[in-house]
Amino acid sequence: MPANLYEPVRYTLDLEAKRIRPALVLMSCELFSDDVKQAIAPALAIEIFHNFTLMHDDIMDQSSLRRNQPTVHAKWNVNIALLSGDAMLIKAYELLSQLSGNRLTQIMPVFNLTALQVCEGQQLDMDYENRDHVSIDEYLKMVEYKTAVLVAASLKMGALLGGAGEKDAGLLYDFGRDLGIAFQLQDDLLDTFADQAVFGKVTGNDIVANKKTILLCEALRLANPKQQEKLKGWLNRKSFDRDEKIKAIKDFYVDLQVEKYVRERIESYHQNAMKSLQQLGVDESKKSALLDFADYLMHRKK
Amino acid sequence: MPANLYEPVRYTLDLEAKRIRPALVLMSCELFSDDVKQAIAPALAIEIFHNFTLMHDDIMDQSSLRRNQPTVHAKWNVNIALLSGDAMLIKAYELLSQLSGNRLTQIMPVFNLTALQVCEGQQLDMDYENRDHVSIDEYLKMVEYKTAVLVAASLKMGALLGGAGEKDAGLLYDFGRDLGIAFQLQDDLLDTFADQAVFGKVTGNDIVANKKTILLCEALRLANPKQQEKLKGWLNRKSFDRDEKIKAIKDFYVDLQVEKYVRERIESYHQNAMKSLQQLGVDESKKSALLDFADYLMHRKK
Repeated sequence: MPANLYEPVRYTLDLEAKRIRPALVLMSCELFSDDVKQAIAPALAIEIFHNFTLMHDDIMDQSSLRRNQPTVHAKWNVNIALLSGDAMLIKAYELLSQLSGNRLTQIMPVFNLTALQVCEGQQLDMDYENRDHVSIDEYLKMVEYKTAVLVAASLKMGALLGGAGEKDAGLLYDFGRDLGIAFQLQDDLLDTFADQAVFGKVTGNDIVANKKTILLCEALRLANPKQQEKLKGWLNRKSFDRDEKIKAIKDFYVDLQVEKYVRERIESYHQNAMKSLQQLGVDESKKSALLDFADYLMHRKK
Repeated sequence: MPANLYEPVRYTLDLEAKRIRPALVLMSCELFSDDVKQAIAPALAIEIFHNFTLMHDDIMDQSSLRRNQPTVHAKWNVNIALLSGDAMLIKAYELLSQLSGNRLTQIMPVFNLTALQVCEGQQLDMDYENRDHVSIDEYLKMVEYKTAVLVAASLKMGALLGGAGEKDAGLLYDFGRDLGIAFQLQDDLLDTFADQAVFGKVTGNDIVANKKTILLCEALRLANPKQQEKLKGWLNRKSFDRDEKIKAIKDFYVDLQVEKYVRERIESYHQNAMKSLQQLGVDESKKSALLDFADYLMHRKK
């Protein structure tokens, strides 16, 4: 077992993380079955898959830090991060393969489709970097694929493992997808508008990097021609003072009431998620864990 | 569907290739069953997996040509080759997932273990680049993992799909592994000793790149201390005339009878493969296709 292949895997999985997705697999399974143990291997598969995508995304985005620690390609090198990532993807499938035949044929299509969509989301994200304009719908599609479908699939897989029917599994999928999108939109808001002391990270990175966030997409939609021109002037500026650029773009966002529009969108996704949860055919008392989860996502400050 | 994700996949799979591995899946299945159709999806999965490894290996090895055409990272860019490769690995699993539950639980462990070993083989290959000395056993382990186990698993998976028992499936695995190693050793020989007109490629690339081939490992094993010193002198030389270096190292190989020793090893693997085939519990007449395949591998000149 070559150490250079497996040490980065251990390093990555040892970093402190919220483990939202595997928790969702288990919570969702528990809605329908007392036997949650069967969902542990698939829950681990989802978490390892998620960390595989982070490892490869960090190479593509040339990120040197992840969870406040050096990324694998920064600590070792790109080749090692590439190959260890590949091994993690295979390890995820190895964990799934512990399921019985019937469960495996039920779970694999969900996992495969989701995994491909996550790749598509990352590709869209990279494609958008080279474009001047990204519509709100295009942005939301990217976010859905890159972030939300894996949250959704975690819930759906947990439900199916617990013995849920297709209808309930689908409702949980929709619940997770809508919350996942809301989560990412929150993320965009926080990167610009968070209270830095609470947030624990520097704000304004997305603005400095011209990242196509929901804020920028909204601003470009709402701006009149003159504002559009000024905004694009800032985006095209090659050299600038960091704080000056952040202030200038933030002023646009404030003038155009971008935060309000984005908060409305977040609330709308939240409402949709709640509707899916209401329709779910399980006892109301069992839904409280998922309600708490939604609440946590909606009110996070970091 | 982002074009940048899927066009490189199409491009790669459209290149002319021998398709040895999927052919072996089908041939092996046919030994035990008249229903070869069931093996088509897994055969495609193996071929797509193989091409995924080539796409990522080419990034790691910074190869600009593959099958006489630009590699994906050269034609597009590294990020696209990385992500399209990931998508191909997932697509391979998607194809496997078409199997019935019983077959899937039987095939997945074989595929997963093999896929991980292929990654380990590539990691060993990269590790060896940074080492002065690689023993014959270490080299053979790397070749087994990087090349031979996928040939072996192709045959084993085909056999299991055809309904073979574990014993016959294991014999076919061993047959494929031994031929796969023999194949790679042949490859090493051809890169240095092939008739360039028949080979169709320039010879001597391995020598120029100081690649740890079986030839170099054997030479370092057979050389006396003085020859060792001279040989390492050539390996450590930073600037040299290409043809001069090739001739010098080739002269070492000739003096040390390296070619003879390597041919003996190849013949020994060939014999072992033949023994596995003899023990196989199917009618002798059915074995001819695999015998032809072994014959083709053993006598190829390019």
